[in-house]
Amino acid sequence: MKEYRLHQLVEWLKDEDLSACFLTSTPNVFYISGFYTNPHERLLGLLAFPNSKPAIVCPNMEVTQVKKSGWKFDIVGYDDTDDPWQKVQEYITRLGLSIDKIAVEQEHMSIARLHKLQGIFPDASLASAEDKMFQLRLIKDEEEISILREAAKLADFGVEVGVHHLKNGVTEQELVAVIEYELKKKGISQMSFSTMALTGEKTAAPHGKPGLDTVKDGDLVLFDLGVVLNGYCSDITRTVAFGNVNEKQQEIYETVLKAQLAAVEACKPGVEIGQIDRTARSVITDHGYGEFFTHRIGHGLGIEVHEYPSMNATNTMTLQKGMTFTIEPGIYKPGVGGVRIEDDILVTESGIELLTSYPKDLKIIKA
Amino acid sequence: MKEYRLHQLVEWLKDEDLSACFLTSTPNVFYISGFYTNPHERLLGLLAFPNSKPAIVCPNMEVTQVKKSGWKFDIVGYDDTDDPWQKVQEYITRLGLSIDKIAVEQEHMSIARLHKLQGIFPDASLASAEDKMFQLRLIKDEEEISILREAAKLADFGVEVGVHHLKNGVTEQELVAVIEYELKKKGISQMSFSTMALTGEKTAAPHGKPGLDTVKDGDLVLFDLGVVLNGYCSDITRTVAFGNVNEKQQEIYETVLKAQLAAVEACKPGVEIGQIDRTARSVITDHGYGEFFTHRIGHGLGIEVHEYPSMNATNTMTLQKGMTFTIEPGIYKPGVGGVRIEDDILVTESGIELLTSYPKDLKIIKA
Repeated sequence: MKEYRLHQLVEWLKDEDLSACFLTSTPNVFYISGFYTNPHERLLGLLAFPNSKPAIVCPNMEVTQVKKSGWKFDIVGYDDTDDPWQKVQEYITRLGLSIDKIAVEQEHMSIARLHKLQGIFPDASLASAEDKMFQLRLIKDEEEISILREAAKLADFGVEVGVHHLKNGVTEQELVAVIEYELKKKGISQMSFSTMALTGEKTAAPHGKPGLDTVKDGDLVLFDLGVVLNGYCSDITRTVAFGNVNEKQQEIYETVLKAQLAAVEACKPGVEIGQIDRTARSVITDHGYGEFFTHRIGHGLGIEVHEYPSMNATNTMTLQKGMTFTIEPGIYKPGVGGVRIEDDILVTESGIELLTSYPKDLKIIKA
Repeated sequence: MKEYRLHQLVEWLKDEDLSACFLTSTPNVFYISGFYTNPHERLLGLLAFPNSKPAIVCPNMEVTQVKKSGWKFDIVGYDDTDDPWQKVQEYITRLGLSIDKIAVEQEHMSIARLHKLQGIFPDASLASAEDKMFQLRLIKDEEEISILREAAKLADFGVEVGVHHLKNGVTEQELVAVIEYELKKKGISQMSFSTMALTGEKTAAPHGKPGLDTVKDGDLVLFDLGVVLNGYCSDITRTVAFGNVNEKQQEIYETVLKAQLAAVEACKPGVEIGQIDRTARSVITDHGYGEFFTHRIGHGLGIEVHEYPSMNATNTMTLQKGMTFTIEPGIYKPGVGGVRIEDDILVTESGIELLTSYPKDLKIIKA
């Protein structure tokens, strides 16, 4: 774990006069503690206090892993037959703390858990821990950047594998299988989302699902994939042509590429996020495809594959050095097909660094 | 979609005098509508009313997929720059409905969304949709059972692939890669959770993570995996011996097997769930390993890999025909290793059907 993060959280608790903070999402617990787990429906939490040491709340069967991750503070373990909230209450009572105001992740904590929390701290008022955690996670430190860089390289490699295996009759699912196989052999244990390989008309669905459709002459083939490396995500999209694509498909490709390059070009410290979306959107609109670009220009990228900030047309936040996000315009024309081109971007002192680097000129694979 | 499910939900709304129900989790939206998607942080929802047709709320870019899934009712689409809650409010206003009492998934809906909901329906009181949905999903219909059966066979196949690729020096991650590759080639697009292949001492962590550790003579090797097939999950665990395992390891294996067989044997309609956990636990405790069986005997299985009911020692619910769940005792002895054996179970008229069927006698692979 990185003590500076815990320190920042604790300082914030002091500044805001909060008695405690209870983080319950995997990404936020990981960011502060270094412990990464998917607790499924079980309660996972990190308790922090202004003047006491923090504690992790987790199932007893995870305790060994928590210790292995380097956590040096208390662990409140519970069995499946225990009420974990009672354990939290007992722990806090033992510490002799009184909880007047507690910050929680309001976008993550469920209503049912809120009731549990109110049950053990009936007099406590609620605050939001989300904005603070978003802020803390927004600017990546050197170690995070080097992991994100590596994760992006593995995403490039994933596209390379997919393109390499393109041939007449190969199914979308076979492409997915071989991409993930090669990445997992390299030690990747988790993709950052379900790998997408879409062909033909299916490329027109931004969130289409790979199936048993086969690649055939004249198809656009879209790959959207990413890996989780040491808790950090990458996310790349490339669209390639298989065989003789027609002029309409090429025009769509060139329009998306132009929009993507313009949006990337627009990124630098001080620029408004909305402006980046609008830059790409106006290129696409000028070419008459505005109605077919049905999503935002991108999203923050880090411990989560979609994280703060949302890169959309109305976001007035400005870019700062150390932010990482995607730039991914697309055109999805029903009956014709779709193209999306997505890079992972790091904001630097004076501009940006492209973390993903698979070529973007239209690649035509011989059918 | 299966109209009988929507009908049951609507009947419940009438019985409970509810003005509406707003389901927001992927599994529940899928169960009622047949539309399956991972909305990430975006709002996905299914609105049902006692006397009006239902509607799906989703990002505009998912609308085509919703229609393709067979949904015949309204769709409330929104763009990334819209406030989806405002769209919901407008939709309900257009229908001329007044919302006095609305049921939501309290274990899924976040505090932040609750505030949004209270913003658009300030006078509405809240009810829980969870218990009703749990009940509806608890008893699987014939189609669900046949998918679950097929998903379990694919899990068996996954273990077979893993065992087949065991050799000196193979890494845990290579085993994961080849298992998922072979399954994805068969058309599986999603594993039901991160595939686990653990070797040696790492088997002692119930939720350990596969890495670059290599299989060596004398290791126990544990596989825990499952697939998602047409929206339904499987989940199997098998532990095998590689080369010359010692007596202690064999004793642990035989104890877990005895406990697992006893627990499976105990399953039939009318039996209390707690009794099944206690049956396995007493076998393990009698052999002196009680403290190393650190989790419940299993969990419900269906659209979610962990779903209702929790199969733990204090659950007094009784088994009914059509329920599906896992039975998975384990012993995790630090420094020695761990064994877990897990099957997927369907309760039948008079007993059970084992959905998973990979052999359970200790398999010793030549090193």
